[in-house]
Amino acid sequence: MKRYEALAEDIAQSIRTGVLKLGDRLPSVRQASRSRGVSPATVFEAYYLLEARGLVRARERAGYFVIAGSKTLPPEPEFTSDGDGDSTSVDISQLVFDILESTRTRDVVPFGSAFPSPLLFPLPKLARSMAFAVQKMDPWSTVDDLTPGNAALRRQIALRYLIDGMHVHTDEIIITNGALEALNLCLLAVTKPGDAVVVESPTFYGTLQSLERLGLQAIEVPTHPREGIDLSALALALQRHRPKACWVMTNFQNPMGSLMPDEKKRALVELLTEHDIPLIEDDVYGELYFGNRRPVPAKTYDTKGLVMHCSSFSKCLAPGYRVGWAVPGRYAKAVSRLKLTTTLSASAPAQAALADYLAKGGYDQHLRQLRHTLSLQQSSLMQAVVRYFPPGTKATRPSGGYFLWIELPKKVNALEIHRQALSLGISVAPGPMFSAQRSFVNCLRLNYGHTWDDRAEAALMTIGRLVASWRGDTSTNTAYYI
Amino acid sequence: MKRYEALAEDIAQSIRTGVLKLGDRLPSVRQASRSRGVSPATVFEAYYLLEARGLVRARERAGYFVIAGSKTLPPEPEFTSDGDGDSTSVDISQLVFDILESTRTRDVVPFGSAFPSPLLFPLPKLARSMAFAVQKMDPWSTVDDLTPGNAALRRQIALRYLIDGMHVHTDEIIITNGALEALNLCLLAVTKPGDAVVVESPTFYGTLQSLERLGLQAIEVPTHPREGIDLSALALALQRHRPKACWVMTNFQNPMGSLMPDEKKRALVELLTEHDIPLIEDDVYGELYFGNRRPVPAKTYDTKGLVMHCSSFSKCLAPGYRVGWAVPGRYAKAVSRLKLTTTLSASAPAQAALADYLAKGGYDQHLRQLRHTLSLQQSSLMQAVVRYFPPGTKATRPSGGYFLWIELPKKVNALEIHRQALSLGISVAPGPMFSAQRSFVNCLRLNYGHTWDDRAEAALMTIGRLVASWRGDTSTNTAYYI
Repeated sequence: MKRYEALAEDIAQSIRTGVLKLGDRLPSVRQASRSRGVSPATVFEAYYLLEARGLVRARERAGYFVIAGSKTLPPEPEFTSDGDGDSTSVDISQLVFDILESTRTRDVVPFGSAFPSPLLFPLPKLARSMAFAVQKMDPWSTVDDLTPGNAALRRQIALRYLIDGMHVHTDEIIITNGALEALNLCLLAVTKPGDAVVVESPTFYGTLQSLERLGLQAIEVPTHPREGIDLSALALALQRHRPKACWVMTNFQNPMGSLMPDEKKRALVELLTEHDIPLIEDDVYGELYFGNRRPVPAKTYDTKGLVMHCSSFSKCLAPGYRVGWAVPGRYAKAVSRLKLTTTLSASAPAQAALADYLAKGGYDQHLRQLRHTLSLQQSSLMQAVVRYFPPGTKATRPSGGYFLWIELPKKVNALEIHRQALSLGISVAPGPMFSAQRSFVNCLRLNYGHTWDDRAEAALMTIGRLVASWRGDTSTNTAYYI
Repeated sequence: MKRYEALAEDIAQSIRTGVLKLGDRLPSVRQASRSRGVSPATVFEAYYLLEARGLVRARERAGYFVIAGSKTLPPEPEFTSDGDGDSTSVDISQLVFDILESTRTRDVVPFGSAFPSPLLFPLPKLARSMAFAVQKMDPWSTVDDLTPGNAALRRQIALRYLIDGMHVHTDEIIITNGALEALNLCLLAVTKPGDAVVVESPTFYGTLQSLERLGLQAIEVPTHPREGIDLSALALALQRHRPKACWVMTNFQNPMGSLMPDEKKRALVELLTEHDIPLIEDDVYGELYFGNRRPVPAKTYDTKGLVMHCSSFSKCLAPGYRVGWAVPGRYAKAVSRLKLTTTLSASAPAQAALADYLAKGGYDQHLRQLRHTLSLQQSSLMQAVVRYFPPGTKATRPSGGYFLWIELPKKVNALEIHRQALSLGISVAPGPMFSAQRSFVNCLRLNYGHTWDDRAEAALMTIGRLVASWRGDTSTNTAYYI
């Protein structure tokens, strides 16, 4: 055993026995080097090894933190490329609404929620930016800031992309009412009723609802729990169906949390470019990475203007402000005109407030704190899953975002678990919400974007017991959901 | 000649000779009664007579004001019910965008604009409400205020309707990103591609763009310059085409400024109810009346939940905030769900700011001032049309809103006037923008929602000269527009 391996094993032992607890910071490299009498390089290598094993995680400018507890993590779901790639009419909206509406009250424990806790955001500072921005707002900005939107805000967005290595011109950015509108307008710009569109399997239910509303066919292509959409299956689907667009979430996919490696993103763009098919890229979670740098958007590899990149501030800065954007490449004019004839423009005060906030600085500091909090909450949830869920449970290990995807033992019906949990005041998001074919019957998406406290712990234990005590699908009510 | 007639003639003479000028206030009834030695009833009758002749106008709580100048007004356009009621595919968006984009710069004199001057609105007071509202905003409101929207704001809206005699429950109101989104969602809720929809002729170009985007057929039914959509023609169209909806602007129609009498609104709702066809009512200008009371919405006469009433704050209080609403009757759930899957929700700060502004009072005072200003600006524009436009010009006399509809001599091509005026830094809205069949070739919509100053006067004179010097349609460029 090499020196760094010995050191790593020593620290891993401290974690297993509970000497080092979830959220604890490891000593700095300098401290550890001194106290252990090893070189800084040896400490670095030991820490890298622990990170690779999923026991600690580096946080930018803050050091390494323990993210695993004293028990072993559940295994990750296996990838089975079993989607048949058939084109499917979508009829999922009713199910999704029934579930969402049943869970939309404050007193339900929000494991099924789509949103992180609003307490995670710098609302007082945003309020000051808002007060300042509306006070000095030029009355004519109500006309000037019509779509494509507030120029100062678009410049700030372009600047952030530049820092992350993506070149986007201010003029290409169209401000929208959140990413959802951006995505919908992009889809509208490149399809007409009856067309087929590639989506991931599982995918965000909002995607399926958009397809259903526009009368589009879904071609579901399997997505790998770690690495995103399967390119071989996609290549086959492109040849078979000649879809009009491909809608993919490249970074911290909802619901699985998968992250496409950079090279895979490049390959995805190249594959679609070969077939001249636009990529609608949903990148709303890209800023919520737990690693050392922002994963690049697929848009970075766009050479032909075929990538319609969409994002927003709703998940990382300003929930409720409803400010998102599209960078639709060669479809910019079409998207801009669709925006003008549907909702005309985003709210001028919200745009001005965000432009002011971004210009004043502090966003990166907020993001570092937010990522750290989410990362710790993920560990807490993961540990609780280990404690309370029965053997045979699998879980993804996302390196960003705020969703965990849980695969329950095969026989368990997640819609029934949803129903039972809801009657006990707990929400979950059952797997069939995320599939046009209502697959993933034994899966759950759990939100860890809320404070981990005794109530959350107790609620998760309750879900675990419901799963563990599963005796088969005896309820007649389940038929209602399927 | 009776006493009141003599008094009225005397005052009319003072207006003709310029002793009383545009915008002057008539003496109060009490003053006039004393100084003229007649009874207050006689003064009242004389003022009523002058109002009926279009020379003065009553303003709530402020008395009577001179609205005509020393020249006679142009005649009103005649109503010719010549629409053939055929169903038409819509292909107008490109023309509309070309015109709108060419006129969207600050340095163009904005007679073609769709917006009133932003200087007319209480932006500083709104800014204070915004600062207060975001400061005290409950973080959880970002979830609670999701569609259907901020409860306090919806209560304020319901309360205003109640005062105006319309009973709308808070729960029926869905907050949207401006009236345009409300109207679009209502249309989407009751149609599918290929369906036919009744629209007015002329109609707001946004209506035509919505139909075009959704692949709907337009059935154009003629609208009377004073009294709104022609019910006989509508009745025929309903029988011939079985449309899926009827989209009408009941109060101060864009572009003509027509106002449907209350009884006609009732008849409209009854006719559509007989055929079980939903009415999409666009009432964004209803608050901008120059008379003594707000004209009621057609929704007031809705007994079956068939009227989908839409309005907003964009034209009367808060341009750029993008806050409107729908009251969609029996289609409320459908509209709400469409909102959730397209743009999710209106901006929370904008909703909270408006709720605070409305609760604090001052809105009615602002509206009185706004109506008075618009009324005077209408008179100024009307007088300038008299001065600078050639004989044969006709103009509507709207009793609210901020658009004047001008009928030029038959041979004049308004698209060409638009092109020539634009090259001189002046925008107008040519008639064909307002018709799926590109009719109204000799008509213009002129905006009087901006300050009347020397620049406006000179620009209007220029337009008048372009019209007066019209020598036939010699330009080859016109083909581009038609």
